[in-house]
Amino acid sequence: MKKGFASDNNSGVLPAVFKAMEAANNGHVLGYGNDPFTQKAISLFKERFGEDTEVFFVFNGTGANVLGLSSITQSFHSIICAETAHIQEDECGAPEKFTGCKLIPIEPVHGKITPEAVLPHLKGFEFEHHSQPRVISISQVTEMGTVYKPEEVQALAELAHRNGMYLHMDGARIANAAVSLGLDFRKFTRDCGVDVLSFGGTKNGMMMGEAVLFFNPELSRLTKYIRKQSTQLYSKMRFVGAQFVAYFENDLWKEPATQANKMAKLLESEVTKIPQIRITEPVEANGIFAEIPRKLIEPLQKEFFFYIWNEQTSEVRWMCSFDTTEEEIMSFTKLIKKLLYLKT
Amino acid sequence: MKKGFASDNNSGVLPAVFKAMEAANNGHVLGYGNDPFTQKAISLFKERFGEDTEVFFVFNGTGANVLGLSSITQSFHSIICAETAHIQEDECGAPEKFTGCKLIPIEPVHGKITPEAVLPHLKGFEFEHHSQPRVISISQVTEMGTVYKPEEVQALAELAHRNGMYLHMDGARIANAAVSLGLDFRKFTRDCGVDVLSFGGTKNGMMMGEAVLFFNPELSRLTKYIRKQSTQLYSKMRFVGAQFVAYFENDLWKEPATQANKMAKLLESEVTKIPQIRITEPVEANGIFAEIPRKLIEPLQKEFFFYIWNEQTSEVRWMCSFDTTEEEIMSFTKLIKKLLYLKT
Amino acid sequence: MKKGFASDNNSGVLPAVFKAMEAANNGHVLGYGNDPFTQKAISLFKERFGEDTEVFFVFNGTGANVLGLSSITQSFHSIICAETAHIQEDECGAPEKFTGCKLIPIEPVHGKITPEAVLPHLKGFEFEHHSQPRVISISQVTEMGTVYKPEEVQALAELAHRNGMYLHMDGARIANAAVSLGLDFRKFTRDCGVDVLSFGGTKNGMMMGEAVLFFNPELSRLTKYIRKQSTQLYSKMRFVGAQFVAYFENDLWKEPATQANKMAKLLESEVTKIPQIRITEPVEANGIFAEIPRKLIEPLQKEFFFYIWNEQTSEVRWMCSFDTTEEEIMSFTKLIKKLLYLKT
Amino acid sequence: MKKGFASDNNSGVLPAVFKAMEAANNGHVLGYGNDPFTQKAISLFKERFGEDTEVFFVFNGTGANVLGLSSITQSFHSIICAETAHIQEDECGAPEKFTGCKLIPIEPVHGKITPEAVLPHLKGFEFEHHSQPRVISISQVTEMGTVYKPEEVQALAELAHRNGMYLHMDGARIANAAVSLGLDFRKFTRDCGVDVLSFGGTKNGMMMGEAVLFFNPELSRLTKYIRKQSTQLYSKMRFVGAQFVAYFENDLWKEPATQANKMAKLLESEVTKIPQIRITEPVEANGIFAEIPRKLIEPLQKEFFFYIWNEQTSEVRWMCSFDTTEEEIMSFTKLIKKLLYLKT
Repeated sequence: MKKGFASDNNSGVLPAVFKAMEAANNGHVLGYGNDPFTQKAISLFKERFGEDTEVFFVFNGTGANVLGLSSITQSFHSIICAETAHIQEDECGAPEKFTGCKLIPIEPVHGKITPEAVLPHLKGFEFEHHSQPRVISISQVTEMGTVYKPEEVQALAELAHRNGMYLHMDGARIANAAVSLGLDFRKFTRDCGVDVLSFGGTKNGMMMGEAVLFFNPELSRLTKYIRKQSTQLYSKMRFVGAQFVAYFENDLWKEPATQANKMAKLLESEVTKIPQIRITEPVEANGIFAEIPRKLIEPLQKEFFFYIWNEQTSEVRWMCSFDTTEEEIMSFTKLIKKLLYLKT
Repeated sequence: MKKGFASDNNSGVLPAVFKAMEAANNGHVLGYGNDPFTQKAISLFKERFGEDTEVFFVFNGTGANVLGLSSITQSFHSIICAETAHIQEDECGAPEKFTGCKLIPIEPVHGKITPEAVLPHLKGFEFEHHSQPRVISISQVTEMGTVYKPEEVQALAELAHRNGMYLHMDGARIANAAVSLGLDFRKFTRDCGVDVLSFGGTKNGMMMGEAVLFFNPELSRLTKYIRKQSTQLYSKMRFVGAQFVAYFENDLWKEPATQANKMAKLLESEVTKIPQIRITEPVEANGIFAEIPRKLIEPLQKEFFFYIWNEQTSEVRWMCSFDTTEEEIMSFTKLIKKLLYLKT
Repeated sequence: MKKGFASDNNSGVLPAVFKAMEAANNGHVLGYGNDPFTQKAISLFKERFGEDTEVFFVFNGTGANVLGLSSITQSFHSIICAETAHIQEDECGAPEKFTGCKLIPIEPVHGKITPEAVLPHLKGFEFEHHSQPRVISISQVTEMGTVYKPEEVQALAELAHRNGMYLHMDGARIANAAVSLGLDFRKFTRDCGVDVLSFGGTKNGMMMGEAVLFFNPELSRLTKYIRKQSTQLYSKMRFVGAQFVAYFENDLWKEPATQANKMAKLLESEVTKIPQIRITEPVEANGIFAEIPRKLIEPLQKEFFFYIWNEQTSEVRWMCSFDTTEEEIMSFTKLIKKLLYLKT
Repeated sequence: MKKGFASDNNSGVLPAVFKAMEAANNGHVLGYGNDPFTQKAISLFKERFGEDTEVFFVFNGTGANVLGLSSITQSFHSIICAETAHIQEDECGAPEKFTGCKLIPIEPVHGKITPEAVLPHLKGFEFEHHSQPRVISISQVTEMGTVYKPEEVQALAELAHRNGMYLHMDGARIANAAVSLGLDFRKFTRDCGVDVLSFGGTKNGMMMGEAVLFFNPELSRLTKYIRKQSTQLYSKMRFVGAQFVAYFENDLWKEPATQANKMAKLLESEVTKIPQIRITEPVEANGIFAEIPRKLIEPLQKEFFFYIWNEQTSEVRWMCSFDTTEEEIMSFTKLIKKLLYLKT
């Protein structure tokens, strides 16, 4: 299949990550995380996020979100998130099914929610007829390709904590956020008051495997049971551990995220020159949203596959990946122009 | 406690209903619905709604909604309703907990939702990442005291059915709706395409007991198991059956609902005369919503208890009940005027 | 329907209980338990069980068990009970559905379980692959008509507590147990270490309504939300409160339970004289289990309905109720003898 | 870590499987299974099990069981299995949590259940108080290292189907069973009436990934939604697909399973010579269960780690893996003898 802009999970695995898995494929180790690779990976997370961070590896992003949210809720709680959040739109109701909680979707601005928008939903505390607000959940990078600034995260954390609630962050694209902000992971997560973090690797060149991080050990006291019961405990966990070890070594994660973000900016700057295209969201990481002439969609998709975001408005999503190249961006924009009969 | 305007469930039981329960308290009958009172009640429902209607009695309104919704959903479905719906705001997440489904709240206009507002949420069919839209749920009377017209119900039913979905109606105050519309129950439910109906009696003078009606027997094939598993199967069911028998005899239900609605209209007409009070929702059944001067609330509540609906806007809810009297309305409005130093 | 021996829930409501409900049917009171009847009933429970007892009223026995068990478990726990327990056999999986827990059924002896039988299942603690043992649940009276002695309850409580677990008691027929033991309720529940008790009234002459009692307030900190979410919060709760007030006044509960138990003993003594009948369980409360000639079953059921317990062994269950009379017992045994061509 | 006999999941990945993953790590493919590797793997399953087989890949064994069972049950059903079954003992209640069903454990003989043992639990059909029997679930290889013969599978399937139920097979070690029986996979699964099969690969040399197979397409009509909602949908599914393609090519799976089974038989024949050791279960695949002198356990574990199965009886489990060697078996038995002061 020709490379396109469908999703950053259409790409494969970073060679260094693959090599690390191969090196881990050697003899016997105990299962379910009691192996040196997993233990090493956990210690690398602790280095980055603080020694009292609790780390649980799972298979995938939905699993990570479900595990994190289940650990900090009871079924009569509610979880407040953006209408566009992955947990609201793209997990087929896994959070409701597993936690039993109500999700309260809020209309976001450029994929982000604000304390002002959350506030009206912080009601009914102690009133048994009403699902009890318990979690504010945000995505970093958001599903609209934007990035919360540290002070924005902090404001939401403070609002949550003032109300006895927690701040959960879905960091499926956290590497792209770190690169975009130019900050260490910790600076815009734990240091801003995030309580539970889904730390994703798959979309930035790992094969599979995400980590759920708890910055208050009390919150994860029962998480190991929840992980098993939620089907997310991996027997040969060394193969996730080894990936994360490689991922952090020499900050391996930085280069692919940088490349993906850079390609998105390049694409942005190229299509900005095309008057028939309107970029709809700030381009702050590796995704671009744009309204394009409807007639463009089909012929473009044939050469570079991508998804339509909004049929009504003819809005599309273009995701750049760690292996997206400058040549591809240029060919793509050249094709757009050609299809529009622009001089190229 | 002095009568007030807190809720129509603060009132007691209609004497005729009580007498019927007493008459049913005689000797042995089989449990769990295999008794003549329950069977008679079922036949009375069938008379009103059609012989192929399937009828399941439960204890209360939340139980009725949970049973009806569970019967027509799987956990990966979604249920679309007004932001103000009882199932969204007032059941502490019982629908999510029991069905596993996602609830999608829509901003209503005067408590009602329209096909136009529902339409953008009918998406992602067959796309496994997205909770599958399955049910549109409306309340009749709505939680804002308004009443869907038959053609409004029908338009939503048609939208649902066109998309392979069902229309669920929470009829906790269905008697008030029937009186308001001047229509037989069937005319604005089954005949308009409602698939599943929570038929409430408690708020209109019964002691406890609601019925879940299915207008397509296929939908309720497994409902008896769900009722038991959801804790809503009543052993001495004759005491619900007997109530409904009395409720339908000589259309007993009509008078209390008529009185409650009438009192609400009277209250409306009285407070409309007071310039400091702004009625916020059309008064179509037995509830009134009004923004009133903040300083009025506490002294008024002392004499006639009621609930604040919206702290921010100083909006209150006044519910009339079957036993609300003209004298009470007049004393209440007199007190308002007195508190406002109006001439009374 | 002619009275029979099918179930103690086939009987109606004690006149004094009915009268109390009627007296409560007067004017307005707040809903959901904030009424004087409910508050009075709670105080009567506290008198009997200790001032720090937490009391939650629900509609029925399955609701009571689900609420009690949900309050003290998380979904990765297990609940150990007799194979014959109501929660295992007769609630259509409501405990699993609502708690998410695993139920571990143990083969009982005469309906009872012992520490010795429970012990082998107390394993896998801290081992995340294994459902974590959390609750031992017993029924008092058991489903086989037997009664745990205080020291038997205590032994199970001690075993539970030694292992960080709780003892739950399903007291659907607790009045019959109290009469059988000749002890105050507290003596064989809280004083023996029971942590959570479903206190039943329906089978002993109430219309509906059970209480869930917690003897450690910490355990019920979140119970009010669980009650609402489990559909068991009753709006017009005064009608349960009023019943319990009457039930405790002058120990009203004692007479009906005494009568039911007495009738069971009478029936036992009568059928013991019939050589073709073998009583299979000790008769300690109001139920009798007996193997009888198969040909007897149908003609007997025609006159006095009852249920077959075990088709294979031709074992039947005869339940006596508060309104079972000596005459009925004598007619019943006379009929048995007649059907067996014995001299009567 | 030195190789031992702890579990067949302590081993790594077969070189050919690893190589296939590496080959798949090339450019972009669509996510979530719409890639050529996954499609090819599906077609290989269809070749082996029939063209109308429906195939769903998941991450792990618990995920496979949960997905298969969820697809064929509703929450008021029950699932009958051996007391020793993985779904009963080793999944921390994941089946109950996700399906809501009751699991009914049966005492097995050598890990197997029989129609005779299942029969008494096939009761209460149509009786709404009782969890409705829906699934018989067996493990092949069983958790006790034994293998169901085709006629044993068939007898259970017939019993299930006669009662409107399904037969589910947990084939976490299905390759070891196939080798043990000398039969193609289909011969002892679909051809014997199995309806749903968890087809495991991880314990036989894959990195991760299991397949859930449905032999009646109607049963899996909604499975894709359940897979997503149960967190088991893998974005980069090609890396599971590629493994299975390699696994089936030239029957790659056969050699490792053969080796593991062979080593178990060798170990059996060696320890049989030691009078202080009593083998407790027939050795029919790659696991051995034996009662050994208690004092042996610790020193043996130091050199070759393994798990204690039953503390009381000093029974241990030794699992052989695809990479267990003859030398290891001989060193191990030599050490046993040495510890027992036997001549070696």
